Amino acid sequence: MRIARTFQTAPAAVPKENTAKYLDSALASEGFSAPDWLVPDLEDGTAPDMKAEGLENTIDRLDGGVEFSGEIWPRVQWAYDDAGLRDRGEEEVRTLFEAVGDELTGVVVPKVGRVADVERAIDVVERAEEAAGLPGGSMELSVIVETAAARSDLRDIAMLGNEDAHGGGRLAGLVFGPVDYTAELGGRAIDGDRPRWDGLLEALSNEASANDVVAIGGPFDKLFEERAGVTYYNAPAYADQVEREAAVGLDGSWSLYPKQTVQANRIHMPTPTELERDVSKIERFNDAKAEGTGAVTVDGQMVDEATFKNFANTVETVRTIHARHPDQTRDVYDEALVDRALDLDTDWQR
Amino acid sequence: MRIARTFQTAPAAVPKENTAKYLDSALASEGFSAPDWLVPDLEDGTAPDMKAEGLENTIDRLDGGVEFSGEIWPRVQWAYDDAGLRDRGEEEVRTLFEAVGDELTGVVVPKVGRVADVERAIDVVERAEEAAGLPGGSMELSVIVETAAARSDLRDIAMLGNEDAHGGGRLAGLVFGPVDYTAELGGRAIDGDRPRWDGLLEALSNEASANDVVAIGGPFDKLFEERAGVTYYNAPAYADQVEREAAVGLDGSWSLYPKQTVQANRIHMPTPTELERDVSKIERFNDAKAEGTGAVTVDGQMVDEATFKNFANTVETVRTIHARHPDQTRDVYDEALVDRALDLDTDWQR
Amino acid sequence: MRIARTFQTAPAAVPKENTAKYLDSALASEGFSAPDWLVPDLEDGTAPDMKAEGLENTIDRLDGGVEFSGEIWPRVQWAYDDAGLRDRGEEEVRTLFEAVGDELTGVVVPKVGRVADVERAIDVVERAEEAAGLPGGSMELSVIVETAAARSDLRDIAMLGNEDAHGGGRLAGLVFGPVDYTAELGGRAIDGDRPRWDGLLEALSNEASANDVVAIGGPFDKLFEERAGVTYYNAPAYADQVEREAAVGLDGSWSLYPKQTVQANRIHMPTPTELERDVSKIERFNDAKAEGTGAVTVDGQMVDEATFKNFANTVETVRTIHARHPDQTRDVYDEALVDRALDLDTDWQR
Repeated sequence: MRIARTFQTAPAAVPKENTAKYLDSALASEGFSAPDWLVPDLEDGTAPDMKAEGLENTIDRLDGGVEFSGEIWPRVQWAYDDAGLRDRGEEEVRTLFEAVGDELTGVVVPKVGRVADVERAIDVVERAEEAAGLPGGSMELSVIVETAAARSDLRDIAMLGNEDAHGGGRLAGLVFGPVDYTAELGGRAIDGDRPRWDGLLEALSNEASANDVVAIGGPFDKLFEERAGVTYYNAPAYADQVEREAAVGLDGSWSLYPKQTVQANRIHMPTPTELERDVSKIERFNDAKAEGTGAVTVDGQMVDEATFKNFANTVETVRTIHARHPDQTRDVYDEALVDRALDLDTDWQR
Repeated sequence: MRIARTFQTAPAAVPKENTAKYLDSALASEGFSAPDWLVPDLEDGTAPDMKAEGLENTIDRLDGGVEFSGEIWPRVQWAYDDAGLRDRGEEEVRTLFEAVGDELTGVVVPKVGRVADVERAIDVVERAEEAAGLPGGSMELSVIVETAAARSDLRDIAMLGNEDAHGGGRLAGLVFGPVDYTAELGGRAIDGDRPRWDGLLEALSNEASANDVVAIGGPFDKLFEERAGVTYYNAPAYADQVEREAAVGLDGSWSLYPKQTVQANRIHMPTPTELERDVSKIERFNDAKAEGTGAVTVDGQMVDEATFKNFANTVETVRTIHARHPDQTRDVYDEALVDRALDLDTDWQR
Repeated sequence: MRIARTFQTAPAAVPKENTAKYLDSALASEGFSAPDWLVPDLEDGTAPDMKAEGLENTIDRLDGGVEFSGEIWPRVQWAYDDAGLRDRGEEEVRTLFEAVGDELTGVVVPKVGRVADVERAIDVVERAEEAAGLPGGSMELSVIVETAAARSDLRDIAMLGNEDAHGGGRLAGLVFGPVDYTAELGGRAIDGDRPRWDGLLEALSNEASANDVVAIGGPFDKLFEERAGVTYYNAPAYADQVEREAAVGLDGSWSLYPKQTVQANRIHMPTPTELERDVSKIERFNDAKAEGTGAVTVDGQMVDEATFKNFANTVETVRTIHARHPDQTRDVYDEALVDRALDLDTDWQR
């Protein structure tokens, strides 16, 4: 099980005294503030005239290795309908792999079009990996699904995650980009909010699961609200979005801000109530199973292999996070509950 | 028009004095308690160590013929990612067809994967039918859509319902399996409820209709609720789910329990209000039609061939149920209303 | 940018003294009452025994040219499962193109099935265009998506809008037909309303955008409501539907009635608030851009190229409507705001 609760973009260069300010703070983040995936952003987050500096910053900060606990995935420039941008993107991938390839898990490619365009991006990664002398197949690719063409080809694009697909299965992640997507479709925020694109999210979750790649929701950009003269961080609205994404099985959420990272890291962990409920259901089910019946009723709910798997998912997620971030599980759950989760028999025996 | 209002699974063996208790009661059910499709369950409803007994029970109870008014569709073991389970499933199909094939409409195969896996299941049915000396093409197949792979291939899987498809169109039904499906996608019941997967249900209804196969919703397993110390049958929540399924055009709903069967049989019949409304609209429309206009307004709604077809659907459904279960239509509608429905001219004449 | 805010069907013949009454009033409509696309309806809106008269009326009214400000798109007879109807439809297309082809933008073909059926309709248009001696490729095709087969093949059907597709990209519009669609799927108006088919609308918007064709919502046929003895035009319910369609990026809405046309023309224009908001955001963003940062926060919302495109869409829509209907923009917006929208730099410079 791979952890990708948070996909935090950080502009690679900003017009401040320290142009790597956001990159520095993201790389120094700890605990719940540290994203599982950190994305130094050379695309829309960095101004046109600062792209070169963004690339330098990224290399400078990663060169020689970093302490950072998560995966590092720079986002490069790209667009399915702009060959010039794609050339710049390829150049960025080559430069990054050459200089700091060992520190990276892969690259994030935005604005991909139909499946052939994603295959083109895979070829770019493959050539850059070889040119940099990195181990064959070590560098992965995630794409932002934010064009009508990519949504139309989503099923075929997701299949590029399979080992026998073009490029040997480098595709590792599908990330939703709602702002560009809404603009492409001509959608409107009539009452102030963009449509939620529930159908797309359901399909993203399904196709990612069918091909064992990671699915991540889109950014929430109304970071702050104002009420009666006071501006505050918009915590509830972001949490609502992340909860909806978690419910339909997205693996993680996009973060634009450290507080969003804290929230998404937390929400993509089972709540203490969920963990207590599912640990307890498995415990009671395992007891009942000893008596030899297939369908057992626990709290008025029939438990069969399928229901059981849902409970076991909860426990497996906690175990994976615990192995990597024991401080986080300690923070959220009772020690005794963590121990019960670790000890539990989560095998359904046929 | 085929009736499949209810798809009731009954564990084929349970650890009680009479291990066929649920099978016996389902086979003896009458009136609204009798499902249109009865599914003796050899898969998740029967404990691993009771599979053989479940198979024996099913054969024993069906051998020599039964009075049961509906179709009988055993669910066998199967999984797209487990060859051992598929072998056991094939063995179960062969044994069932050999012993009681004449009593069966077909078999239900769970946990299918991509379209090639469903074709594999079709081949199993075809071989077993031949081995048992049953008429060629007489045994049908329904599958549970409960994996990301099956959802991804849903369009192609549904096309197996066409006569010119692999196996000659044996696929007769598509049934949703939300529990396994949610587990596969990593979905979460954050507020206690699984996501509804509205996109999947809409697609299931569409692809079933496009290929003339039956579409059936998933089980509702919170059979009972407790309030202030009293446990009660969760009638409203199940009815809500069945109504949503009926609205989007699913032909039937999954039942785990006789009271659910009563409710789903009722909800998948037009209500008296719907029948009165649509009979009356057709009557008034037919009168207006005599005056020779294409678009007629009845109650402020324009009625053309398309609207008319919706009204006629209501009437046709009632006629089909009436032909098979006159006791049920008598129970639900005024005798005079049934007579009007039977007498009505539901032909749209171009 | 093409305008298709309204798709108004007008029965081509009705049993009144002037059988072309609705056609005449639609052709004479002005201002917000005039649809962007006017659809003389030879299909469901015209009675079976008045089809010939409907065709005559259409030709008679268009012959010699009309003042009408929008595009004219007759709907002919057709059904994927009825060869006789298709023959009549082909005959209608030929007659129309021969007599008044110069006045038409194209034809609307209903009840199409899978992609092969739409290709068949394209061939009909191509042959009729040639027979009538019209410029090659001048006549377009829009189809009503109202069968399960067309929904199943929607992705491939939409691709017929591309220049390199069958027939050279004649497909120009995809229009939803919810009444026939609901009847085909066996959907039910249990609480009085048909399902909204949100998944289909999302897909329609996406596939239209991916192939640069126009997407239009379905008719709303509850034109009138009665309350306490008074019958009134159902303005709010229609507006709600049109707003939902606009939000998910449909280009226009179906109108059955002049007041619906007024409403849909208005709703598919940005509101004054939207225009003021987006013009102001671009103005402030352009100012901030001069300082050289990629991601700028305006009103607590991060603005990057993607967000910017959404604002620019609003402005472009207003400019397009203004070029064609300056009376409409004058009616809706302050003159000063229109001037700001026209003057604005909406180029995102990389």
